[in-house]
Amino acid sequence: MMQWLIDTLGEVKVEKLADFNDSALASGEKNVYLSMSYVSSPFSINHSSTMIIATKTTVSLHLLQRLKEIGIDTVFGVPGDFNLNVLDVIEGDKSLTWGRNVNELNAAYAADGYARVKGAGAILTTFGVGELSAINGIAGSYAEKVPVIHVVGMPSTTSMEKKAYLHHTFGNGEFSMFHKMASHVTVAGEVLSVKTAAQQIDHVITQCLLQRRPGYIGIPCDIALATISVLQEKLDYSIPKNPVGAQEAAVKAILDAIGQAEHPIILLDRCATRNDVKGKVNDFVKASGFPVYSKPNGLGVINHCVPNYRGCYIGASSLAQIRQEVLGADLVLEIGSEALDINTGGFTLNLDPEKVISFDSSCTKVFHSMFENVAIQGLLPIITKRFPASCKVDTQQLIESQLGPRAQQTYTTDNDNKVLDQAYFWSKLASYLPEKVALVTETGTPTLGTFNLNLPKDCTLIMQLGWASIGYGIPATLGAAIADRSKPVILLVGDGSFQVSVQEVSLMLYHGVCPIIILFNNDGYLIEKLVHEGGYKYNDIQMWEYAETFRYFGRDIPVNQDRALVNTAKIGMQKRIHTSSEFDTAMALAVAQSDRIHFLELVFPADDVPKSALAFVSAYKQ
Amino acid sequence: MMQWLIDTLGEVKVEKLADFNDSALASGEKNVYLSMSYVSSPFSINHSSTMIIATKTTVSLHLLQRLKEIGIDTVFGVPGDFNLNVLDVIEGDKSLTWGRNVNELNAAYAADGYARVKGAGAILTTFGVGELSAINGIAGSYAEKVPVIHVVGMPSTTSMEKKAYLHHTFGNGEFSMFHKMASHVTVAGEVLSVKTAAQQIDHVITQCLLQRRPGYIGIPCDIALATISVLQEKLDYSIPKNPVGAQEAAVKAILDAIGQAEHPIILLDRCATRNDVKGKVNDFVKASGFPVYSKPNGLGVINHCVPNYRGCYIGASSLAQIRQEVLGADLVLEIGSEALDINTGGFTLNLDPEKVISFDSSCTKVFHSMFENVAIQGLLPIITKRFPASCKVDTQQLIESQLGPRAQQTYTTDNDNKVLDQAYFWSKLASYLPEKVALVTETGTPTLGTFNLNLPKDCTLIMQLGWASIGYGIPATLGAAIADRSKPVILLVGDGSFQVSVQEVSLMLYHGVCPIIILFNNDGYLIEKLVHEGGYKYNDIQMWEYAETFRYFGRDIPVNQDRALVNTAKIGMQKRIHTSSEFDTAMALAVAQSDRIHFLELVFPADDVPKSALAFVSAYKQ
Repeated sequence: MMQWLIDTLGEVKVEKLADFNDSALASGEKNVYLSMSYVSSPFSINHSSTMIIATKTTVSLHLLQRLKEIGIDTVFGVPGDFNLNVLDVIEGDKSLTWGRNVNELNAAYAADGYARVKGAGAILTTFGVGELSAINGIAGSYAEKVPVIHVVGMPSTTSMEKKAYLHHTFGNGEFSMFHKMASHVTVAGEVLSVKTAAQQIDHVITQCLLQRRPGYIGIPCDIALATISVLQEKLDYSIPKNPVGAQEAAVKAILDAIGQAEHPIILLDRCATRNDVKGKVNDFVKASGFPVYSKPNGLGVINHCVPNYRGCYIGASSLAQIRQEVLGADLVLEIGSEALDINTGGFTLNLDPEKVISFDSSCTKVFHSMFENVAIQGLLPIITKRFPASCKVDTQQLIESQLGPRAQQTYTTDNDNKVLDQAYFWSKLASYLPEKVALVTETGTPTLGTFNLNLPKDCTLIMQLGWASIGYGIPATLGAAIADRSKPVILLVGDGSFQVSVQEVSLMLYHGVCPIIILFNNDGYLIEKLVHEGGYKYNDIQMWEYAETFRYFGRDIPVNQDRALVNTAKIGMQKRIHTSSEFDTAMALAVAQSDRIHFLELVFPADDVPKSALAFVSAYKQ
Repeated sequence: MMQWLIDTLGEVKVEKLADFNDSALASGEKNVYLSMSYVSSPFSINHSSTMIIATKTTVSLHLLQRLKEIGIDTVFGVPGDFNLNVLDVIEGDKSLTWGRNVNELNAAYAADGYARVKGAGAILTTFGVGELSAINGIAGSYAEKVPVIHVVGMPSTTSMEKKAYLHHTFGNGEFSMFHKMASHVTVAGEVLSVKTAAQQIDHVITQCLLQRRPGYIGIPCDIALATISVLQEKLDYSIPKNPVGAQEAAVKAILDAIGQAEHPIILLDRCATRNDVKGKVNDFVKASGFPVYSKPNGLGVINHCVPNYRGCYIGASSLAQIRQEVLGADLVLEIGSEALDINTGGFTLNLDPEKVISFDSSCTKVFHSMFENVAIQGLLPIITKRFPASCKVDTQQLIESQLGPRAQQTYTTDNDNKVLDQAYFWSKLASYLPEKVALVTETGTPTLGTFNLNLPKDCTLIMQLGWASIGYGIPATLGAAIADRSKPVILLVGDGSFQVSVQEVSLMLYHGVCPIIILFNNDGYLIEKLVHEGGYKYNDIQMWEYAETFRYFGRDIPVNQDRALVNTAKIGMQKRIHTSSEFDTAMALAVAQSDRIHFLELVFPADDVPKSALAFVSAYKQ
């Protein structure tokens, strides 16, 4: 093998050949890399039938090349003296945009919002101060299963070897502690060395994509620009194939169960929102005609306009009719199954395991039988393909004969044209949501209020149901809006959350994105008031001049317009709204003017609560 | 022993006596606690000569009692559903103030700023999202040796035992990961259980104070209000006495060295700023008359008006005369010795170990001899007491005969009454600083510019020289101002840093504190532009309407005034300043109106750099 390699490389100078991974090349393994210490110039290997071409690049360029390969065109983050070498390369690359965030936590949230639209996101911070400021955002992506690659500019290898007491360190000669801290909230983490940088980068990115969770890449600043040779291969992040025998057994068990079921339903959860699952779920829904319900974390996968979509199931806090329908089913095909408190109405789903088949991206469970490693990606298309025609449900007939029209949240408001209240807002919101909207709902009442909303066609619902970190909304909106500039983006955010991360609005102006920001001004932490009554003053907050947000963040300052990335966002509505008619007028205008950024401050009575939030809190407390 | 205990407790019902720590009681050990499971009512034990009284309290009350005992009257933080039980108790205690911060990172910075004035600080956050948002601030306190107690409201013990998938968790049944992450940035950490809560709380607080670094106390929400019995003992955080023999040897070696020295000097570093060291250092300075120099981290310990204070030594970036004086010494008595890059002009101190005696809070080093466990607190007063009269330096004479007048930074500005520049600002700043001011300097040019400033009498200089996390300044200013409302507080902050944590200004209005905020508007990250030249656009930032800050954060909104804790801060100057004469007028007025909050936006030319910052960067780059 070694001789073959020398023959193949021809005149290229090959050093330290013994270190080479013979078996990898021999087996035709795709991901083989030669670092600069092995070869001195670009070369190609024609091995077996695969032409492998190695090219010279740098550590940073290879990293950015991989990010672009997986669809990332914007890197969020904040400059810091250990990441400037990487940042120079980003700035020099016309096909990449620098997020230019105001702080690192906001940058991490923005990367998360971006990833939820685009499939993956990236953030660049500096060592210590920068990465720790971002870590709650990275933890959020970990909790919520969003692939965000966290690149950290580190001190030089020389400084680290010398154990120098640099700023951004503790002066104890330790440089690995932040990486260790990050290991709790990432699925892969590497501090790069020149020799193995390419493999390390590829490993982290691949694991992020496969496990849909964040990864950590630490780049010592002196190797950011180091030259390496890499093989021109696309990143391979295809999932392993399901074991044939186990998969066949699962297919048989599932089709048997479907054949015997009289009232089968589909129940969606987060797994259904995966890029590599969503389409397959929609195919199955279409093929089966089964009534479809969604837990909050599965909302947005199926268009609500499909006739067999029946609404949100969230245990005891569901609408009564939906609860009845789900509990009346004799077979529940669950796509993902997360027993998260807020996703289950406080653990009140009450599903009988004898009736539940659970699909997931790592296994399949048919009643009490677990099929390890049988992933939904391979399995579900087979079920769809072999779906027995006799089992197909005639949705229209089912609705007419049994189910009746889809359950709807009812709203009681006598405030027609008078004081705007939550009931009026939620009763009208759906009518203003455009198709393809990314609806970002901040933790608290804005998220709880959304559960029974009729989402429009191809809506992407962005929220942190599990991590539930207030302040996520504004930066996530920025990220989502940058990810797809053709997509309408609407943010619902409470005042307490708004204050946490307000400054990221200034980046919306810089990036020229045009979301509609809908602020619930209800004078404090409403959700905390609900879960823990007693009229405590710590739930009060300082009232701000919210409606002047765009102005404060530099809307009218000429230098901002000169420097704006695309164009400074054109300013649309900026209004404090007290009445329902004002709301209707403003909302209609804001949606119509999709090339402008809007800010609607809705003044709600302080103790006014969306109905679904009340139902949730009441179920949760029991 | 057990019989004695039963006899002593008399009619009190004692259960599980076998669990009792006999040896502790027998030895007259002071910190003995009896939890509720042992005794059913308050009781007293008269053992040996110590009267120990046990009282009933709750976990939260005991914690807050200890915080008050060490001088804390304000707890910073943000409400979250797992910390509300503790928060209720804080709100119910008239002698405690709730910080009511906008976000957790800011709360941690505020607690740090507070601790630097008051001796210790505390922050309360919720599990996961809250504590991780704060962790960079806690890491800063760790790096900078500031005792901040981080209290985290956790899920109930029941939920944790059930491994319930709660929000703010990863759904993997793990609840210890955040505590593990915090262990890298704290010196003690405990998750409380009812039986040992009092000891755990006391342990963490004691270690924080002794090691002057942060600690972590996790309180499961179901035990926050649990009743416990504690002994009425004050917290004992006295440091261990120095070993007599080693101390005596050190004293002898040091006095010998002093006796032989012809040009002895004192060089201050961070250790000198400790509450339990500062006074002792001042006594020694007075007794010896030695010329005193300070590294940046030791500034503020000695009044600059003392005649033998000679200025800031920072290696190659010192003023030439100061460098000459320090390098000409034949004995350097170093109080603390931190080889931090920014504290040493990029490792250019160039001190000869044969001439250096280092005092520290854990050991003493006399040239090459290390005296383990000989702490400055015990040692220095002995040196002062036994200081030979013959060695006392006549400062006035030394200045006249050898040293000459104290070296001063010179400033070249031809902008008299014209465009305000950094040179003019730094040449005039000292003249406006009131006595006892807490001067908060944000990382970057505001901190670097301060090195050669003549600080006024009893100035507390607050900066993050080592951790250097931008955004620290505003919240630290809030904390410092709350810690001592009689103290003038002045903040110097760059625009990039201001944007990171701007929203904490709204809390200054709420708390009615009156700092002078001096914003350097130089249109971007100036320090990054200096350390890494190339005109990169990533150092540009969005320009804001800075001068409208108070207005945006609710200055004029009546509900804020109704709710303000003391009084809403009265608004003083709010001005964008372009010329040197405008600066002088505004500064004089702002300092005079100490009962108002002021905001001076200084518009500097974008590439204008303070002289000492230039010197620093030039030394650092070499």
